[in-house]
This record gives sequence, structure tokens and C-alpha cells, in this order.
Amino acid sequence: MTDTTTRAPAALPAADEVTAELRRMLQARLDRAQGYGTSFASLWRAATDALLGGKMLRPRLLLAAFDAFTTSATSGDGAADRATAVRVAAAIEVLHFAFLLHDDVIDGDLQRRGRPNLIGMLLDQHNAPHHADDLHWARSNALLLGDLLLADTHQAIAREDLPHPLRLRLLDLLDHTVIDSVAGEQLDVGLADGVLPADLSTVLEMTRLKTATYTFELPLRAGAVLAGRDDGSDTAIAELGRHLGVAFQLQDDLLSTFGRPQEHGKDAFSDLREGKQTAAIAYARTTTLWPSIEARFGSAQLTPGEADAIRALLVDCGAERFVRSLIDDQLRACDTLMASPDAGIPADLHPVVTDIITTIEGRTV
Amino acid sequence: MTDTTTRAPAALPAADEVTAELRRMLQARLDRAQGYGTSFASLWRAATDALLGGKMLRPRLLLAAFDAFTTSATSGDGAADRATAVRVAAAIEVLHFAFLLHDDVIDGDLQRRGRPNLIGMLLDQHNAPHHADDLHWARSNALLLGDLLLADTHQAIAREDLPHPLRLRLLDLLDHTVIDSVAGEQLDVGLADGVLPADLSTVLEMTRLKTATYTFELPLRAGAVLAGRDDGSDTAIAELGRHLGVAFQLQDDLLSTFGRPQEHGKDAFSDLREGKQTAAIAYARTTTLWPSIEARFGSAQLTPGEADAIRALLVDCGAERFVRSLIDDQLRACDTLMASPDAGIPADLHPVVTDIITTIEGRTV
Repeated sequence: MTDTTTRAPAALPAADEVTAELRRMLQARLDRAQGYGTSFASLWRAATDALLGGKMLRPRLLLAAFDAFTTSATSGDGAADRATAVRVAAAIEVLHFAFLLHDDVIDGDLQRRGRPNLIGMLLDQHNAPHHADDLHWARSNALLLGDLLLADTHQAIAREDLPHPLRLRLLDLLDHTVIDSVAGEQLDVGLADGVLPADLSTVLEMTRLKTATYTFELPLRAGAVLAGRDDGSDTAIAELGRHLGVAFQLQDDLLSTFGRPQEHGKDAFSDLREGKQTAAIAYARTTTLWPSIEARFGSAQLTPGEADAIRALLVDCGAERFVRSLIDDQLRACDTLMASPDAGIPADLHPVVTDIITTIEGRTV
Repeated sequence: MTDTTTRAPAALPAADEVTAELRRMLQARLDRAQGYGTSFASLWRAATDALLGGKMLRPRLLLAAFDAFTTSATSGDGAADRATAVRVAAAIEVLHFAFLLHDDVIDGDLQRRGRPNLIGMLLDQHNAPHHADDLHWARSNALLLGDLLLADTHQAIAREDLPHPLRLRLLDLLDHTVIDSVAGEQLDVGLADGVLPADLSTVLEMTRLKTATYTFELPLRAGAVLAGRDDGSDTAIAELGRHLGVAFQLQDDLLSTFGRPQEHGKDAFSDLREGKQTAAIAYARTTTLWPSIEARFGSAQLTPGEADAIRALLVDCGAERFVRSLIDDQLRACDTLMASPDAGIPADLHPVVTDIITTIEGRTV
């Protein structure tokens, strides 16, 4: 569940329509919330600020897939119109933010990418120093707003006047996404709390479930479904989404440890300080250098010098190279799918996917 | 958001059909969850235990309303069949449990009515003494299961193959319910954290929003909607639900303070120890006896003797009598609605409502 700060791939459709739809939806929510008092209205104001400020990667990906499948020969009957696709795309951005909110509540984070998250912003509205009650109030608000937005995602999709089989396919996809994402979040918590073994397969499963499904598989498949692709024929697009998503998150984790913090916006070495169980750490655990890494990994008092030393050890033990090879495998699998005529990835989607691959490969921030 | 331990009113339909539907739904979820590993499957096992053990007040109320409106002359076109009503009724029980879970996460509670709640049960699976990580894991699981169940409630309703206007009416009702309940929970948190003023109107608003809407208004209105009542004609049934719901929760709060704990299952005086802002406390705050109450109210170290003293002061200052009069007002408003031919409360629903009123009036446990 990553709130990206990288540039969005240029080949994606513009965000304007999605932004307009989100603005309309949020204004309606805010108008209604006024009747419940200032605290409730302020929840929706915070949601508006957060939701309208993003790059809309996920909804734009949905629209790219919808447009490509609609103009391709594989498009079938029972397709939705583009206005519906825009509304569903906006709903997916809302789902993204709901997941971020509950992730922050669970992790106890007050920042995301070096800036106050919603909990941090609510806290800043009170006078410093923060009291335990203020923190509880801010966190509870984030949990409750997450509930509202999770409900809203379902409402938005359920309210579309679609042929019933198409509605069921969209609802199946949303159901699959929510289950994957929650199961992935549970794995992440279990890894962080030491309840689950931090082996590579668990870490990769967590990465796929928690991030890849909702960030790439959902938008691509929803675009295909809305364009009227027949049931069962979206296996290839689902696979493409999973490969892109896993590569995207693995690259994000690499950047957190090996990138320049002033550019990617995260706390320098926060993953090392928090003891985050990434693929690089899972790999390092199997090498002879692990005892040297383990000694300081996950220490809240990690100094910049110690973090540099861990970083060098992760390079020396081959963990960085290993994760880069995993990313490469995922991206080559995307190329193979696009080159296969049987997979039926529409030609119009190729430049978008290629652009995303280039973005992931070239990410230094 | 009360998990009642009182007997359900006898005039309600039996819970068998709803239990069977819940069992079917939960088994399907559990079968699917197995593919995600033991931790995820154990979430659904916990949900099954909790959901199948209840009295099903809310779904049975929905079925009572559905049956009454279906057989009454005011029933309209476009009604759903009874199997649909049973499925929607089951979904409402799922929503109830989702709210309880997030309420317990927010309150940090490990018990409900004197027994371990889901968080407490998950903790008990680990060895004592509990570590901070175990508690975090258990709470995070409760939050995530709440998300799954909130999503499931929406899925269940959205997947029904209904005429689109009927689906929209149900979704509107669900939307109204979620917003009311979340706004009510936010008020409750704000009162507990001292962020909002604990005056009587805020406490009563919280009571209505947090409990009355989803416990009584939702089931009654959903029954009416599913029976094909025209849009806009369910004002009376909504009003009836709100009155019953507020009376029900006020009575529940009274019992917590004045009832016998061995019978109502709550911790003796837990509301007084936690400083819960109830209607009785809001009233007492306006009286000259308040300084004597305030001195020990909300102290975690409250002794049984001190609690008894506060209880006596709440009687002496008129707070108990005042809340009883509020309950009486609500119940008399129900009688008035039933007696009014214009309100259109179907005759078959009268015995059910009367039975609920009698139950609330006679509640000593």
C-alpha cells in the first residue's frame, strides 16, 4: 500500500475526469456531513484534501485499460460507457485511501513519505504537546474515515445501473481485491509483530496480496470487465497486473533502503529502523552476513553510520542484487505476456505497460 | 452498539433461517480463506463463532417488518421475495458485528458483557503474559475482520438481482445507516476523549446515531423497502425505529449503572469507572450534586463503595428518574405512531413492537 511520489507514467490518460468525479462525490459527502456537526464535516474535508492531491495512478490505469479494450477487437457485448468507467476509477482511488488510512492506524504512523498523514494532520490541529487523548481521537478518526471510504467504494460500484452479470463481475473483482489486500495487510502485521516467519515466500506473498492486487491487478481487470471482456478471458491481464505490482513494490522497498531520502520522501532508513521485513532482508537472513546485519536491524536508535553499514552489508551479501533480479523477472514476464498473441493484451495498452516498466526500471526516486 | 444479553422479544420470527444463511455465507468465506493460510482462516473461524452465537435481534426485526408489510394492504409493487429478505437480514447481523469489532478496537476493550471479545479471544490463544506485540496483533486482526465484514454487508446487498430502483433504495438506507453509525461512534469517541462537550443533547444525538439507527431504524425500514413500500412512505416506520432504538440504549445505559451486574453481564460499574458520558451523567452535570459525583467519576481505581455512593447521588439528583422519563417519552411516541392510521404501521407489526416496548420497560437484566 504505497503512496507513490514518483512521476506517473506519461502514457496514462490524464487525471482530469477522475479528479472532477472525486470532487463531485466528495462535495456531496461534505454537504451531507455538515448536518452532523463540525467534527464529522472535518473528516470529509480531510478526505477531500488527501484524495484530490494524488497522481491517480490506479484510476488512470483503469481508464487506460478500458480505452484499450474498448477499441480492441476483443471487446465484447455488455460493455459499460466511459462515464461509468470514470466513476468506477474514482471509486478505486477512494479504496486506495481507505487502505492507507487503516494501514496507518495499524502501524501507528503519523507520517507518510515524510509528510504528516491524516492522523498527523488532525493532531497538528491541536496544540502541542500532544496528549494521549488527542492521539486516540486522531487515530479513531482515521479508522472511522477508512470505514466510510470502504463503504463508499462499494456504494459507488453497486449503484451503477449495469446489466446484472456485469455488476456481479465487478463485485467479484472488488471482493477478490478486498480479501487479497486485507490478507496481505494481516501478513504484514504478522511479520512486523513476529507472529509469522519472515521467510522470502511469506514476504513475497505479502507484497503481492497487499499491494499488487489493488494497485495493478484491480484497475487493469476492472477496465477489461467494464469494456465487456468475457468472463474468464482476463487471466492474462490479471497476471500482467500482478507482475507489475510485485515489481513496483519491490522497487519501492529497494528505494527506501538504497535510494536518496531527500528524493523519495521517506525517512532515511526508516525501514531499517522499524525492522521492516522486506525481500532484501528475507534474502540476507539466509546468508552468512546476517548476524552482522541482525545486530542493529530494527533498532529505533539506529544511527546514520549504522544504517550505512547495514546498507553496505545488504549489498555485500547479494540481497540488493537478488531483489533487482526478482524485479527483472517480473518485468520480463510482462514483456512475454505482451508479446504473446494468445494473451490478448490490446495493442493500445502496450505503450502504457512499457512506460510503467520503464518507470519502475528507471526509478531512483 | 450494544450486544444485548436480554431475551429477544417473543413475538419476533425465529432466528433459524437467518442462522442458516449466516452459516452458509461464513462457510463459503472460510473455504476461500483456507487458501490464504492459517492466520487468515482463523479470522473467519472467530467470525463464525461470534456471529452464530447471537440472538439475531436485528435480522429478526427485519423479517418481522417484511412479513407485516408484505401481508398488509399498503404493500406495493416491486417487492423482493422472502429468501432475499433473509439474506439482507443476515447481512445486517454482519454489519452489527463489524461495528462491534471497530468499537472494541477504538475503545481498547478486551471484553464485552463480561466475556472475552474477539480481541480477548485472539489474545487467549497466545501464552500469558501478553506482550505488546500480541495485543497489537489481536487488535489489528479485529480491525481487519471489521473491514472484511463491512465489505461483506455491502456485497450481500449489492449482489441481489433486484429492480434497480429497489436496489438503490436499499443502498440509500445502508448508506444512511453507515453514516449515522460512524458519526455516532465519532461523537462517542469525542465525548470519551474530552474533545466534545458532554451536554445532554450531544449524548442523546450520539445515542440515536450510534445505536438506534442500525439496531432498529435499519431493520424496520429495510423490511418495509423489501416488501415494496413506496419511496417516502416509510417516514413513520423510520421514526418508530428511532424511538425504539433510543429507548433501548437509554435503558441499557441505566442497567449498566443501576442493574445487577451478575445478571446484565457487564463489569459492575464499568461505565462509572470509565467515565462514560451517558444521559444520566449529562443530566447530573446540571445539578448541584455534580461536584460530589465528579470527584470520583471516571477513576480507574473506583471502589465498590465509591461506586455505590455515585449511584445513590445519581438517584438523589434526579438523573435516574430523568432518564426513565426520557425512555417513557420514547415508548409513548411509539404507541402514538401505532395508534395513528396515517402512519401506516401494519397491524401485524403491532404485537412485535408492543413486545419490544414491554421488554424495554421490564428490563432488569
